[in-house]
Amino acid sequence: MEEQKTEEIHKSDEVQEHKPSGSRRDDNTVFIGKKGTMGYVLAVVTQFNNGAEEVCVKARGKLISRAVDVVEIVRHRFMPEAKIGAINISTEELTSEDGSKNKVSSIELKIQK
Amino acid sequence: MEEQKTEEIHKSDEVQEHKPSGSRRDDNTVFIGKKGTMGYVLAVVTQFNNGAEEVCVKARGKLISRAVDVVEIVRHRFMPEAKIGAINISTEELTSEDGSKNKVSSIELKIQK
Repeated sequence: MEEQKTEEIHKSDEVQEHKPSGSRRDDNTVFIGKKGTMGYVLAVVTQFNNGAEEVCVKARGKLISRAVDVVEIVRHRFMPEAKIGAINISTEELTSEDGSKNKVSSIELKIQK
Repeated sequence: MEEQKTEEIHKSDEVQEHKPSGSRRDDNTVFIGKKGTMGYVLAVVTQFNNGAEEVCVKARGKLISRAVDVVEIVRHRFMPEAKIGAINISTEELTSEDGSKNKVSSIELKIQK
């Protein structure tokens, strides 16, 4: 019984995972939003300067191309020694305010120091 | 001297490589342009139906997100058994009509039957 309780606490921790507002998360992930490309480039470089070995850049929908721009600018202009790791694409289902569901593509690009 | 001449011929061959007009090339590649997403989905599925084992979807700039959409729709709606192969990103330098140079990100996604 005690074990089960512990598990529930873990789950409720996970639920808060998605924060649509911020562009950064503490676990070395940069979420691409509607701000300028260079802001996200700076966010990635900062994470590396703070000791991260790998940074994950995520984006959805039309912002996918901005995510690719960010990774390319980081690699070519600021960190020529960095390598691109796994690139994954997937489909997410978003529920809009009126309850209708929309499918949207997403991308995840990993950059390694 | 003769060697140098041969090299120049090679170079001028390479220059014609980029055709911005067509959306397809004969070597199992689908170039994403400004038409609707479903047209490119159809182009990919057609190439597989014509016997291709692998189709490469390429896009540049803002059209990168459409390329990801195309691959995701092919995989989820038309060919559930297909797998995503290598995904590569790079930067291309385009020379515009007035001679100025612009860098643009590009993506290449491979789908395997």
